[in-house]
Amino acid sequence: MSILLKNVTLNNQKTDILIKNNYFEKITPDINQPADKVLDCQNLAILPAFYNCHSHAPMSIFRGISDDKNLFDWLNNDIWPREAKLTEDMIYTATKFSILEMIKTGTVFFSDMYFGMSAMIQAVADMGIRSALSCGALDLFDSQKRQNEIKQIRDFFEMPNPNPDLIQKTLSIHAVYSVSKELIRYNVDMAKEHQTYLHIHACETKKEVDDCWRDNGCSPIQYLDMLGALSDKTILAHSVWLDDKDIDILAEKGVWLCTNPSSNYKLNSGVFMLQKLLDKGCKITLGTDGAASNNSLNMMTEMKLCALSAKIQADNPTAGNAQDVFKIATQNGAKAFGLNAGEIAEGKLADCILVDLKNHFLTPNYNLISNMVYSADSSCIDTVICNGQILMQNHFIDGEEDLIDQIQQFSRKMI
Amino acid sequence: MSILLKNVTLNNQKTDILIKNNYFEKITPDINQPADKVLDCQNLAILPAFYNCHSHAPMSIFRGISDDKNLFDWLNNDIWPREAKLTEDMIYTATKFSILEMIKTGTVFFSDMYFGMSAMIQAVADMGIRSALSCGALDLFDSQKRQNEIKQIRDFFEMPNPNPDLIQKTLSIHAVYSVSKELIRYNVDMAKEHQTYLHIHACETKKEVDDCWRDNGCSPIQYLDMLGALSDKTILAHSVWLDDKDIDILAEKGVWLCTNPSSNYKLNSGVFMLQKLLDKGCKITLGTDGAASNNSLNMMTEMKLCALSAKIQADNPTAGNAQDVFKIATQNGAKAFGLNAGEIAEGKLADCILVDLKNHFLTPNYNLISNMVYSADSSCIDTVICNGQILMQNHFIDGEEDLIDQIQQFSRKMI
Repeated sequence: MSILLKNVTLNNQKTDILIKNNYFEKITPDINQPADKVLDCQNLAILPAFYNCHSHAPMSIFRGISDDKNLFDWLNNDIWPREAKLTEDMIYTATKFSILEMIKTGTVFFSDMYFGMSAMIQAVADMGIRSALSCGALDLFDSQKRQNEIKQIRDFFEMPNPNPDLIQKTLSIHAVYSVSKELIRYNVDMAKEHQTYLHIHACETKKEVDDCWRDNGCSPIQYLDMLGALSDKTILAHSVWLDDKDIDILAEKGVWLCTNPSSNYKLNSGVFMLQKLLDKGCKITLGTDGAASNNSLNMMTEMKLCALSAKIQADNPTAGNAQDVFKIATQNGAKAFGLNAGEIAEGKLADCILVDLKNHFLTPNYNLISNMVYSADSSCIDTVICNGQILMQNHFIDGEEDLIDQIQQFSRKMI
Repeated sequence: MSILLKNVTLNNQKTDILIKNNYFEKITPDINQPADKVLDCQNLAILPAFYNCHSHAPMSIFRGISDDKNLFDWLNNDIWPREAKLTEDMIYTATKFSILEMIKTGTVFFSDMYFGMSAMIQAVADMGIRSALSCGALDLFDSQKRQNEIKQIRDFFEMPNPNPDLIQKTLSIHAVYSVSKELIRYNVDMAKEHQTYLHIHACETKKEVDDCWRDNGCSPIQYLDMLGALSDKTILAHSVWLDDKDIDILAEKGVWLCTNPSSNYKLNSGVFMLQKLLDKGCKITLGTDGAASNNSLNMMTEMKLCALSAKIQADNPTAGNAQDVFKIATQNGAKAFGLNAGEIAEGKLADCILVDLKNHFLTPNYNLISNMVYSADSSCIDTVICNGQILMQNHFIDGEEDLIDQIQQFSRKMI
């Protein structure tokens, strides 16, 4: 499959771009090679697509079912009882539905932590997006549960991968307050054995940090470090409550952090210290968390809140500037998961979005990156290309209506 | 003009709605009266439209020209020198362009403070939206400037109003740090004389409050109260830095506050105390501020940030709930400006949006209000009706492309 983008705007210049064998093969004006598909991009600009580094995709089935509650009330009374009702079919369909929303909003990759892995892996393969999937390990310090979790993780790693080019099998640890040392160590060992990534909720709430000090005499970061869980293949979600020693450890080990501003605000978890962490040399990515606590999977909304929140948090309007935040949402997410992508350059994997320069949100066009971070919404995203394949063109995704109907039907069983 | 909405969803029930003579005339299933236009609303829900209570519409021409800066650097070096270059033509076109974005995002009314009033009033009339326009009084304590401002305000009030059904002429005071007592009193008197509204930037930054105490021995709220500027026809924009005495005065006088969360975050002005003010009985509306400091005019983005920010500010995830915030963005805005609108009910002015229930952001549909506040974007808004006239149908607004081209051309003169 080859795609020729004619007269596309890249960094304020018109050019042609040839995509071949999943890569950006050639970027130069006036390419006259034949291609399987030629797109007229007269009014379109090309940008890196978004890499959503923390989600729980099937939870879109719970969007809006419960809001504005305390975390434990929300989890115990509204979310967990309903998660117990989820079938494989629902997980498959809800994952596809979430991927639909991600594509509509310009995302080509998500890193996920959930359960029902055979349904999830098939959904990702069927939608053609990139993913780092993991079975969220959670044993509540119970040895019976632990054996069950280990079995599920093993099953996941033995399961056939329907598209290894796009899907990475990764490991995850729910959190230090919900997972035993033994299960943490098991995941750390599995990640090393499979040379893959380890995804952990860490320092999301003040309570988590206080409880860790009470129970273990150290912070969650120090605790995870002691168990060998921190490396440049670790992605920590949330990471709101960090002390200076934690930050030094994270910077030194090259750990990736994933901030989820909407979710942290909605559940009143706290505010990420974006600028301080950037200044200390920490590596940052962006994620939406699940649609039950966001309530969308829209990386543009996350970019805006990430940039705005950084200013109030740092008491400095120059903090969290648009360029840094755009890089966090694109290039950094790709880097965190070892993808040769996230930039529009020859030799990079052909992941990109084409945005409509005639859209009002992108007008005037003094600074396209500022417009994407502070102004854009899904109406700006015309086309999404992932690994050299067109996932959406002219705002249209094949099968969209059926998927929405199916979710509406499943949702009736959740009330 | 009459419009019949067939099979529209209102509060989770299907109904028909007849709009006649600018009002919702009849709301009941199976209306069989003739109408000038009949809309099949099978997959659409009707909701109140948004009332944007603080904006500077022409500033959309500066969107993205300067971001992530300190307020005074931004104003002195990037905004004010460019405002001096604005022609009547530019103000006319930029106002229309802003109204285009407002309609696209479901807004039918905006309260504005700017200059170039003859261009602005014509732009509003030509786009068919509601507006409360005011010429932002600002004399920097200079008597020469004061005379000029008074002349401009008089001229504005003498100017013909091309559509008095939609457009209200109102008064505004830039701020206590930029307007003399004399000019404040002049505006207060004019507002009383014309029985209209008074729109003021108040307590936006901590510096404004500190300086007012230093210069006047009281807070900006007390200072405005002393000058007779506070009543239930006063709308205070921002109102971030309030003390308990201020809050008591505002509640007692029935003053309307207008929160502008994106702008307050972006310029690091501070965080509005939404829940505390609601609990104290203050009356709240929502606005976008200008697109130079937001950078969009999207009330859905503002609702989400308003609700999220309230939780962190109050350290309580139940603060700023979706229902309250939706009411603030709709019904309250209409009430603040004396409009018999903001609700879908017989006898109310026919302002509404029709949202697409087949849009992924509104799926599942457990709670449409939650979906509108926490998930929706402009792709959800199918149709906008203002005063019984269709301003947008099936996402389409007449003249959209030309307007965008014109702004792009004008923007080249701003670099």
